[in-house]
Parts: sequence; structure tokens; C-alpha cells
Amino acid sequence: MTYRAPLKEMLFVMNELAGLDAVSRLPGFEDATPDTAQAVLEEAARFNEEVVAPLNRAGDIEPSAWHDGEVRTTAGFRDAFRQFGEGGWQGVLHPQEFGGQGLPKLIATACNEMLNSANLSFALCPLLTDGAIEALLTAGTETQRATFLPKLISGEWTGTMNLTEPQAGSDLAAVRTRAEPQGDGTYKLSGTKIFITYGEHDMADNIVHLVLARTPNAPEGVKGISLFIVPKFLVNDDGSLGARNDVHCVSIEHKLGIKASPTAVLQFGDHGGAIGTLVGEENRGLEYMFIMMNAARFSVGMQGIAVSERAYQQAVAFARERVQSRPVDGSARQAVTIIHHPDVKRMLMTMRALTEGGRAVAYVAAAESDTAHQHPDEAVRKESQAVYEFLVPIVKGWSTELSIDVTSLGVQVHGGMGFIEETGAAQHYRDARILPIYEGTTAIQANDLVGRKTVRDGGAVARALCARIAETEARLGDHGGAAFGAMRRQLAKAREALVEAIDFIVANGKSDPNAAYAGSVPYLKLCGIVFSGWQMGRAMLAADAGMADDPAFCAAKIATGHFFAEHILSQAGGLRDAIVAGGAATVALSEAQF
Amino acid sequence: MTYRAPLKEMLFVMNELAGLDAVSRLPGFEDATPDTAQAVLEEAARFNEEVVAPLNRAGDIEPSAWHDGEVRTTAGFRDAFRQFGEGGWQGVLHPQEFGGQGLPKLIATACNEMLNSANLSFALCPLLTDGAIEALLTAGTETQRATFLPKLISGEWTGTMNLTEPQAGSDLAAVRTRAEPQGDGTYKLSGTKIFITYGEHDMADNIVHLVLARTPNAPEGVKGISLFIVPKFLVNDDGSLGARNDVHCVSIEHKLGIKASPTAVLQFGDHGGAIGTLVGEENRGLEYMFIMMNAARFSVGMQGIAVSERAYQQAVAFARERVQSRPVDGSARQAVTIIHHPDVKRMLMTMRALTEGGRAVAYVAAAESDTAHQHPDEAVRKESQAVYEFLVPIVKGWSTELSIDVTSLGVQVHGGMGFIEETGAAQHYRDARILPIYEGTTAIQANDLVGRKTVRDGGAVARALCARIAETEARLGDHGGAAFGAMRRQLAKAREALVEAIDFIVANGKSDPNAAYAGSVPYLKLCGIVFSGWQMGRAMLAADAGMADDPAFCAAKIATGHFFAEHILSQAGGLRDAIVAGGAATVALSEAQF
Repeated sequence: MTYRAPLKEMLFVMNELAGLDAVSRLPGFEDATPDTAQAVLEEAARFNEEVVAPLNRAGDIEPSAWHDGEVRTTAGFRDAFRQFGEGGWQGVLHPQEFGGQGLPKLIATACNEMLNSANLSFALCPLLTDGAIEALLTAGTETQRATFLPKLISGEWTGTMNLTEPQAGSDLAAVRTRAEPQGDGTYKLSGTKIFITYGEHDMADNIVHLVLARTPNAPEGVKGISLFIVPKFLVNDDGSLGARNDVHCVSIEHKLGIKASPTAVLQFGDHGGAIGTLVGEENRGLEYMFIMMNAARFSVGMQGIAVSERAYQQAVAFARERVQSRPVDGSARQAVTIIHHPDVKRMLMTMRALTEGGRAVAYVAAAESDTAHQHPDEAVRKESQAVYEFLVPIVKGWSTELSIDVTSLGVQVHGGMGFIEETGAAQHYRDARILPIYEGTTAIQANDLVGRKTVRDGGAVARALCARIAETEARLGDHGGAAFGAMRRQLAKAREALVEAIDFIVANGKSDPNAAYAGSVPYLKLCGIVFSGWQMGRAMLAADAGMADDPAFCAAKIATGHFFAEHILSQAGGLRDAIVAGGAATVALSEAQF
Repeated sequence: MTYRAPLKEMLFVMNELAGLDAVSRLPGFEDATPDTAQAVLEEAARFNEEVVAPLNRAGDIEPSAWHDGEVRTTAGFRDAFRQFGEGGWQGVLHPQEFGGQGLPKLIATACNEMLNSANLSFALCPLLTDGAIEALLTAGTETQRATFLPKLISGEWTGTMNLTEPQAGSDLAAVRTRAEPQGDGTYKLSGTKIFITYGEHDMADNIVHLVLARTPNAPEGVKGISLFIVPKFLVNDDGSLGARNDVHCVSIEHKLGIKASPTAVLQFGDHGGAIGTLVGEENRGLEYMFIMMNAARFSVGMQGIAVSERAYQQAVAFARERVQSRPVDGSARQAVTIIHHPDVKRMLMTMRALTEGGRAVAYVAAAESDTAHQHPDEAVRKESQAVYEFLVPIVKGWSTELSIDVTSLGVQVHGGMGFIEETGAAQHYRDARILPIYEGTTAIQANDLVGRKTVRDGGAVARALCARIAETEARLGDHGGAAFGAMRRQLAKAREALVEAIDFIVANGKSDPNAAYAGSVPYLKLCGIVFSGWQMGRAMLAADAGMADDPAFCAAKIATGHFFAEHILSQAGGLRDAIVAGGAATVALSEAQF
């Protein structure tokens, strides 16, 4: 089973829900017309379907392997990554000034979805490189930008993010890696970083490590962390590669999934010191890292959608082939393909509805980011930025949590065959499991959503979004039929549940933080369900209007929205109870009582 | 991290919820006093903690391996299985007449939980052997019983269930294996069976295959299936082993989990015919197989509880050790162990509440089975049998589905370390994934629950159980405090949701089967939640009464019940909507629209 990019669905979401037309009217995006978008997506689909997707299973069977400090990636990865760079795919989003295409994040997001559906492990190398590019665009010196950005954007070099240390995972305050100034503008770094994705590999000529470290006498905690560039090979003034730097991969991890992607332990400075240069100002490293991380968190959210789409396609293909049992309604006397059995349909519809809902929220968020960057009116930029920042933890947290359920259902649809590795469904289930963990666990996303994104502004952005949902409900009410009625009713109930949750979070965030944060993940899930449901409701309205052009697609969209309403939005009330009434029991047990 | 049997919890559930005292008063169970039960459980705990549990990780790293028709199990398995047999553990439940201990299923269930917590892969061999023993007790001839039962019960030989063929998974009507009568009372079998757990191994002297096959001129479909015994080695009249039979293992599967347990492809009759004898009457094989399967389904449900318990213990141990981040309430200025963070507590409480709830339902079901077998009053036996049969698909379906969530949370509690195989959390996540598939998928359980267990009697058993739940609500209403109030309120709401679902299922089961069966899995989950919640409510009442004896345990039980009410019972309304209103959207899409 290979991957086919769902272009029709992607373009529908971009055009009808995310407002590609409006994005293309933003200054700087004049070339990003819907026609261009379609052409770019078609080209991306071809590349990912033909070159990247076929390497997915190979990467699972023959993962990256470490030998004597070097990492050999899966056969085919190096060549595919060269084609990826030459095709300009690393630069879709990045400035033309440094060799990128300067296209909107909305278009880049669709391209990223395809890359990740094709091969989650492969896609991680560009994902981390994107993060390094963002950091240098934000805070790099002119020399750093000129030295590194063109090479990163062309795919000749790749980037990494070095945050985690054995004692510093979610808690970056505990970072201990040292950076000693040498008096010549450089620093010597020493320390151990773990869980470094593509921290060592053979797919590019150089690896540009972005590293969090402390300078001497830096303040304790997160306010004493600085950001450094430490390239694997030092770069000469003419841009050619110089000496091997003192950063070495001492091992890679043996993981549950994404096995092709090497997860490195990097040792800095064991042989005299790893030479690095400061990015931006000292002690502001966490701030810059958060810029990278917000981009990376959004991208990891898209990984959740991407692996869900892949698992869905594989499950549908199996369900169309596998013959087993007669239909429950007696409509055939022989066994039928299992796609005709109601519970198989329920599983496929669940996978489909969750994936479409999550995709719509993410694409809409991407368009908000484009508006936040490019809109001529500052007030509009500010509003879009606030909405985007509110949505990032939801895109990251919800899309990755749902990918666990979707890939699990993908296994279940296959029955016993799903448990056999050769089938491939199990790989998605294993691969997806990292997504709610890395780049900030779901709890970290949820704490961000509660603290910075809800309590800090007194729930203003959250409530403003709820008001927009109510407008959609009103529009749904203008339509007849069971599907629209169900969506209007369930969306209203779910929005009311969300409003109660917002009120509770805002009221308790500071006065009773244990109660508020005990409900943080349920609150994130509730937001995920309600905002996905909202987009599915909007999609139903758009599908109704477009019915004449493509009746089968539009009818399916309406039915999927209907399913979302009764099967997924209906979960909102339970989450509300968990948030507003579940805190006391959550924290009741002492350590010894567990 | 090793395993510690939760003896206090097990004995609480057996004594306070499942009524061990009443079970021990049943004729034949006079020796099974609570004191005896405690002694047996303590001995089982010692054996499983010390001998079986340490082999769990080894089995994952060095799985069973096939070579030239032979299967070598993980080092240590053979010796542990010998000790298992010698300790009498295979015979806990089985008749003393054949060397068993003749103890109630309630006690055997606790022993089985421990064995499965210790090592899911190892435990599968006894689990399937139990099934073979049940089939022979039910339908074996006197000779068959005398020949095979003592050896199976002593653990010298093991048993298998041979149902599945490549084209016949859930749909046994499609079985094609042939059995030709030889005129001497024996049959020659030929065909291919797949997914045969412990179909070949080196842990016992003989393997007794129970095989579904068709005799010549048998009717089409499930009414033409007969059950045969086909031993790996034929057995001479004096009980000694004779010639090697023509059943051969041609390969074993490469699986996502339970890797130590060999999953065999068995070829019958490629070299002249595998000699077998008929069990019971021709064409009644499915009926006998269902007896085995009901026992096996219940046991697989216990596997779900068992792996959940193991994952919970491992997550708690990690959360007590791992230091990361300061508490959100500012109660400490330094980073603390993560068990103090509200979302980690929420995850642990979710794991704990689901596991305790599922365990309670299963143990209560086991006691109903004991009553159904041994009670002197036929009316009581019949009622208990009906309740037990209603609960079996729930124990199997719900306990295994929840094990996916619990083991996934177990990974999540570990953060990045959870994704590293060495940690061990990932193994539980992989191992658990088979549980909702084998011995009948969750959909097969749900169809059984809808069709045979709800529609057939017009919902009588289901409604009778709801009436008993209402009595518990009334008793909860006599208690003050937030926890009891929350349980009473959420249990009542959830029961009302279940009653609506029962009404819908009964009304539509025959007239609109697609609508009824589209909601079958949500109905199974709703039953799982409501019946677990009911037992948690009963547990709160018992804990309140026992508070003076063990305040820490009883307070934890009440808090866990409180958590179950607000976080899990609260999901009932959403499931009700999915069942009663979600059918149309579920089956709306045509095959081409997916």
C-alpha cells in the first residue's frame, strides 16, 4: 500500500476554510494564487508519492545505524534528500533572499503534510532544519545568516535543535551545558545533549547544531540560557568546510518507532571544546528557541495529521480488499468486503473525521500565521498572531493525541493482520507514539494553553473564538436536514461546554492552580474537539454551496461532518465535567497512596 | 522495574465486591474460604513475581525463533513452565478428578491476572491450554478425557485452539480444513491454520491441537464444522508418546508485540494426513469451540487488566523517581518528582481508575460464573449464567480496549524515555495491541453483546442490571461528601444514558440492523463504563465501611471512585449520542467515497 496525496481535500480546506484567496492578496504573496498553490501541491504530491513514500517501510526494517561515531541512514534516504533539496522543497516557506520560495505557510503546510505522510522519519530532518532556519532568521547575525541560511535552505546542510539533557527534558531550567567565551568572539561548548533528532547522519555535507548552553556567571534557571551555533564542520570565510568540530555522536537510541530517524546522544567538547558562536544576545536563548519551537510544534502537529492520513488510506485499502462475513442487514448471501460492515465503517469514519477536523484547524492556523506576518493593518496582524498562538498548542497537542487513536484504529481495521509487522499498519501505530511527547508533551502544550494562552488574557482570545463559532451555528441553522441540524445542536452544546471550561480555567488559574492544571489536558482536548467541529461545520456549509460541482465529494464532506457531530463533538460534555469538577479527585492521592 | 501483585486490592475486590464468602459457601467450594484464597494468592504472587515476571523483557528482546519446523522459546521459559506445572497452577480451576485443584473461577481469575501481569507472552500457553481442557471436559469422550486431561492439567502437555485460516478469521463459516474418516474411528486432517498461539514450542512434551475442520458432505457454513483433537505426537494406549503426527509448523509471525509467544502457521496433512479424533458429535464443533472461546474471551479480558496493572506500576515507579520542573502551585522552589504534577497525577489516576474498574467487573463476572455452575437452586444458576454471558463480551471488549489507553498513558508518563525500548513501557503498549483483536475483535464482542445478549431477550438482562445499579445509587445517596455525591450523580446520568441505548438497540436490532450495529462498539464501551462505574460506586461504599481498618487504602479507593465518576462515567452521554443518533452518518458513505 502506497500513499496518495489527498489533493482534492487539501485544496478544499485551503480554499474554503483557510481562505487561500485572502492569503494570496497579502503583500508579498501576490504569486501565491490558488492556481499556483494547486501546481505546487501537485508537484509535491508527485515527489512524495514516488520518491519519499516508498522508503517508509525500508526505514523501519533497516533503521539508521551507528558505527564508531558515524550514522548510516537507510539506503535511499541520502539520494531522496538530495532530490528534496534540489527540488526546492526545504525552501518553500523561506525568504527568496536566501534561496527560498517565499510562499505562504498555508501552502508549505500542505507540502509538509505530504512529506510526513510519505515518511515521518525522513521528514524529521527537514522539520528540524526549518527550526534552525527560523532561529537564524530571527536572531542570527548578518554573517551567520549569510554563512548558514543558503546552505540550509538548499538542503546541502541540515539543522538540529539541541535542548534536552539527561536531567533537563520538559524543564529547560536544568540545562547544564557550558559555553566559555574565547575572547575572539567564539565560545567553547562542553556537555551532553540527548534525544537529538538527526544529530548525526550521512545525508548532508554539514550539520548545523543550534545548542542551548550557559555562559559563565549566567543567572540560574531559564533566564541564564543562551543559544549557539555549533556546526559539525567549521566553515571557512569563503564558505568552504574547515576542521571537524568537537561534537560527536556517541550513540543513537533504540526506539519504538520512527526508527529511520537517528536520535543521537551528542557529546560536546570532550576533546578540547566544541567551537560555537552566539546567536542573538546572551541569556535570551530560550526566547529564540521558543520561536523555533513554535514552528516545530506546529509541524509536529502536522505530523499527527499526516500519519493519521496515511493510516486511514491503508485501512481503507485493506477494508476494500478483505472479504469476511455476510452483512448484518442480510443484503448479501455471501461474505462481503469488510468495508460494508457497520463497525468497520465506524472505525474508518472515526479515522477520517478526526483527520479532516485536525487538518482543517491546522490549515486555518497556518493562514492566521500568514496574516499575522504579512497583513498591512497592524491590528489585524496582532489579532491573527493571538489566534495563531492560541491554536499552536492545540494543533500540536490535539493532532498528535488523535493520531494515537487513528493509528490504533488502523491496526484494528486490519484484524489479526494488523499485528503482523509485514502489513505496515503497526509501523504507523509505533511511529505516531512519539508525537505527543517530543517538542513538548501534551501536558506541556496544555499548560501553555492554560497559562499563557487562556489565563494571561483572561480568556479573551478563547471567548472571541467561541463567538465566531456561534456565528457558524447560526448559519448551520439556516439549513434543513438531519446532518446540519445535528451539527448545529452538537456544536452549540460543545461550545457551551467550552465556555464553562474557559470560565473555570480563568477563575482558578491563579487562585487554585492545581485544580486548573489538573484539567489542562482535558481542556486542550475539549478545544481540539470544538475547534475541529467548528471547521467541520464550516466545511459542511461550503460543501453544500459547492454541491453542484462535485456531488460525491461534497456529500461525503457533509456526512463526515454529521459523523463528527454525533460521535466526536458529543464527547464535549464529559470533558467539561472532568475539567470543572474533576480536579479535586485528580490530586487527592498522596505519593504513597499510588 | 519488576511486578508486585496488588494483593490488597485483589482481596478487597474478591471479598467486598465479588462476594468470595458467598462463593465459598457454594457446594463443592467448601475449601475455598477467604483464608485459603489469601494463601493461594500469596503463593501465586511469589511465583509470578520471582519466576515469571523477570522473563518478560527477555522474551521481547529474544523472541521465540523458528528453525526447520521447530520453535525455540526464550531462554528460561521452558524451566519456568515446568515450575508452573509442578506448582499446580495450570489446574487451579480444573476438576480434582483429573489432578486439578477445583477452586472457584474467582480465585483462578486473580491467579491468572498475576500470571498475565508478570508475562503476557508466557501466560498465553496456559490460557490456550485452559481452552483445550474446557473443550474436552465439555465434549470429550471418556478415553479422550483420560488420555489428555491429566497431562494438560499437570502442565506436561499443552493445548492449542486451531480456528483461523487465511480466508477465515472472524468468519468461521469459511473454514476449509478437511477431515476424512478412516473407518477406524480416526480422521485424517488436511489444511492450513494460521495465527495459532503456541502452535509449536519446546516447553512441553506434547501439544494437543483442538482443530475445527469439515467432514465430507458436511453442510455449508458454521453448521458443518466439527472439532477434532490432533496431538503433535500420537498417544499410545498406555499413555506413552507414539509417532510424530503430520502437523508441522512452517513459520511463525513477526509481530508488533507478545513476541515471546510463537504465533504459528500450521500445516496439517502435507505428508499423508494428520491423524485426529472427533470431539463430541460431527457438525457441532462451533458449539464446543464457543465454550472454549467464552473461557478464553474472559481470560483475554483479564490480560487487558493485567497488562494495565503492570503498566500502571511501572509508570508510578518512574513518576516517583524522575525529577523535573517546579510544582505549578509554587509549593516548592526546586524541581520535584513528577508524581507531584497535576497532569501526571491525572494520567496515573486514569490508568488506576480504568484498571480497578475493569478488574472489579471481571471478578464479579467470575463469581457469577461460579454461582452459575455450583448453586443448588436452578433459578439462581440460570440468572447468574445469563449475567455472566452478558458480561463476557464486556470483560473481553472493554478491558482490552482500555488496556490500549492505559499502556499508551504509561508511555506518556515516561516522556521521551517511554519511546526508548530499554525503558520497557513501550513493550506493554505493543503487547496490549493484540488484545482487542484475538479471540474475537471488539466488534465481534460488540455484535455478540447487541445480538445474542441484548436483542434476543429484549434487553431483559441489561435492564435488570440497570435496576441493580439504581439500588447502588440510592445507597450512595445516603452518604455525604463530594465524592459520594459525584458518584451518585454521574452514575445515575450514565445509567440513564445506558437505558436509552438499550431501548434503541432493542427497538432497532431487527428492524434496522445497520443502525443498531453501527453503534455496537460504542454500546459495548458504554456498558464497560457504566458497569465499571457501578463497581467503583460499590467499592466506595465498602471502603467507607472499612475505613477504620485501613484508612489509607480506603481513602484512596474512595478518591479513585470519585475520579472515575467525573472523568470516566462522564463520557456516557457522548456514547449515548453516538449510539442513538450516530448510525445514519456512520453508514452514509459508499465504498467509493472513502
